Amino acid sequence: MSDFKQRALDYHAKPTPGKIAVQITTAAETSEDLSLAYSPGVAEPCRAIAENPDDVYKYTGKGNTVAVISNGSAVLGLGNLGPMASKPVMEGKALLFKRFANIDSFDIEVNHKTPEEFINTVASIADTFGGINLEDIKAPDCFIIEKALQERCKIPIFHDDQHGTAIVTCAAMINALEIQGKDIEHAVIVCLGAGAAAIACMELLIQCGAKREKIYMLDTKGVVHTRRSDLNEYKMLFANNTDKRTLDDAIAEADVFVGVSGPNLLSKEQLLTMAPNPIVFACSNPDPEIKPELAHSVRDDLIMATGRSDYPNQVNNVLCFPFIFRGALDVRARKINNEMKIAAVHAIRTLAKAEVPESVLKASGEKSLSFGKNYIIPRPMDPRLCHNVAKAVAVAAVESGVAQIPMPECYL
Amino acid sequence: MSDFKQRALDYHAKPTPGKIAVQITTAAETSEDLSLAYSPGVAEPCRAIAENPDDVYKYTGKGNTVAVISNGSAVLGLGNLGPMASKPVMEGKALLFKRFANIDSFDIEVNHKTPEEFINTVASIADTFGGINLEDIKAPDCFIIEKALQERCKIPIFHDDQHGTAIVTCAAMINALEIQGKDIEHAVIVCLGAGAAAIACMELLIQCGAKREKIYMLDTKGVVHTRRSDLNEYKMLFANNTDKRTLDDAIAEADVFVGVSGPNLLSKEQLLTMAPNPIVFACSNPDPEIKPELAHSVRDDLIMATGRSDYPNQVNNVLCFPFIFRGALDVRARKINNEMKIAAVHAIRTLAKAEVPESVLKASGEKSLSFGKNYIIPRPMDPRLCHNVAKAVAVAAVESGVAQIPMPECYL
Repeated sequence: MSDFKQRALDYHAKPTPGKIAVQITTAAETSEDLSLAYSPGVAEPCRAIAENPDDVYKYTGKGNTVAVISNGSAVLGLGNLGPMASKPVMEGKALLFKRFANIDSFDIEVNHKTPEEFINTVASIADTFGGINLEDIKAPDCFIIEKALQERCKIPIFHDDQHGTAIVTCAAMINALEIQGKDIEHAVIVCLGAGAAAIACMELLIQCGAKREKIYMLDTKGVVHTRRSDLNEYKMLFANNTDKRTLDDAIAEADVFVGVSGPNLLSKEQLLTMAPNPIVFACSNPDPEIKPELAHSVRDDLIMATGRSDYPNQVNNVLCFPFIFRGALDVRARKINNEMKIAAVHAIRTLAKAEVPESVLKASGEKSLSFGKNYIIPRPMDPRLCHNVAKAVAVAAVESGVAQIPMPECYL
Repeated sequence: MSDFKQRALDYHAKPTPGKIAVQITTAAETSEDLSLAYSPGVAEPCRAIAENPDDVYKYTGKGNTVAVISNGSAVLGLGNLGPMASKPVMEGKALLFKRFANIDSFDIEVNHKTPEEFINTVASIADTFGGINLEDIKAPDCFIIEKALQERCKIPIFHDDQHGTAIVTCAAMINALEIQGKDIEHAVIVCLGAGAAAIACMELLIQCGAKREKIYMLDTKGVVHTRRSDLNEYKMLFANNTDKRTLDDAIAEADVFVGVSGPNLLSKEQLLTMAPNPIVFACSNPDPEIKPELAHSVRDDLIMATGRSDYPNQVNNVLCFPFIFRGALDVRARKINNEMKIAAVHAIRTLAKAEVPESVLKASGEKSLSFGKNYIIPRPMDPRLCHNVAKAVAVAAVESGVAQIPMPECYL
């Protein structure tokens, strides 16, 4: 076993199994403390909440709690491993919520047969939390599940694999287009992959100005086009009225390649046929659609991003999900709407254009970082992200009418 | 508002709303740390668990996690307040699990229409946890729910309001009978109340030697007897073939009174009719069935216990539930069976007979404590409880064949 694999296993096994635990936030030493924490004192907040349901935010942890919920049907790039084998990912996500945004998050793995069972289960327990982050649920179930839960629950429901990925991808893409001197409305975009992340990325790019008819999406059978009869309703939205059939056809003269598919699926020959100043986001993890070394060796007019931390321009969901929930929770948003997502896109991309202070360089382990081909998006360890993104999201929630309490002082 | 009520509300509102939070147990500062905690490193424990399901105990927090789950249908003595108003109690229980047994516990409130919906919901998410503590669910739903979940889940399901109460009551009762020189097989027992706790207490007393035909259970309509046609199947088990109809009838010459009903329902006149050296457990909270001052003023041959911390002999579930789960988790018991419950009874009652070290006196705020009428059961702050009760439960689990791993070293 490689050293890294062994270290990863050890990291999860020690000092205690897993990565998160529960912590008591109040005094709980003396009998007196416990008479306040539990019977008889606890009857008071119960009575208060029974009289005024909003008091649940005053006397319990609900308002700072996000559940990370999965069925393990699409775990990382590993496929349908089932709920139990997905648990390390879900605990990892909870760790990231705490680490980056001080949100108390724990994981729930759901064992179910039909999407309806999953929906009923999650809807029944949703009131426990301030928000729900859905994770690693296969398409197209994830679309049905998210929509149904958004309709049934009074709290934000956010499928990070779709929208977190889309927000960070769009933030990086808008900056890349700017640097390459391309207009998003005219950009020809090839999207290799037609799963949940691919569809969400393309939908959000369209919200940001991209044209649906200039997008060529490809699934395992090639270009998604109007004469195919095997498309589900989600892919159908991207069916292009075109004669292009293969990646070779689609990539020629394209401005943008977005890969959310698998390793080494974009060849250097294909890259060479792209338009001048191309943009390649090869986000398959851990092995991208084309290796950055290979891509740069054949095109020096390229901007490239990957999902990896060991290359420049990492498209990493952690730039978004902790902070979009932070902002949503801070104004008790009923949901995470398009306005909030687009606010997050712009807050993230704008931060990449700001001067990078010494503290951020230090946290990122860099000597210098300035907006350009190799720095189109902030680093995950940038401590400015939380305030900037959460504030932008909170403002958007208030302005779009989904906030239930005013902006907290920390943002004013 | 009284000072205590205000302090109870403040305790829940500050420093942050609620009483528990999430804590990261691994290094999570650097990019390297995060590459182990999340992608790409997290794929390794996922793969390991997919290959060997038991590895979920090695690489995740499952094995030390207990969910506290309620629907809020019988919150404390306050009635059906609903799931949201029950949340402070459930968070309080989670706090006690952490405080007393270092178990990571969080609460889930379930909103549902039928018991079947509750069962389906909890069964779907059960694999997330090492055990489930059901709480504040009204009778008779709680019986149906617990039984169904025990059949469907591979982890311990324990309704504390039934079994935790029963275990602590039995521990105290066996000691009280011993001090009063009474034999449990001959004891005439009056149980005022016929809800979940009452039924569980009487069932466990029978397991410990009490005779069903010597038990007189009373509900709001009086004695539960064989000629009543309004009894549910659970009360039916206690239908006594008797002419006694009222509490007056039943209490005369009784040895034991157990109250799990409401305040001031046992009069001093009724107490006076009990047999010599009577035992009165007046467990209604916060106001007992008879005030200890009143009871002692009319009978000096009495042993009395209540649910209150400000009188001797507090029957408090916290003497049991953290430790029965600690023992069950430590040997990965498939369930909490009768053997384990009875082991807990005897571990708790035996501890009351042991010499009380200075440290325990200090923690309990007492000058001296020795086994006798005013000390029939250990104090909640007794730090010996965790090891003694958990070990006894773990041994019973191993010996009764429900343990899935050997006894851990700390108990050998």
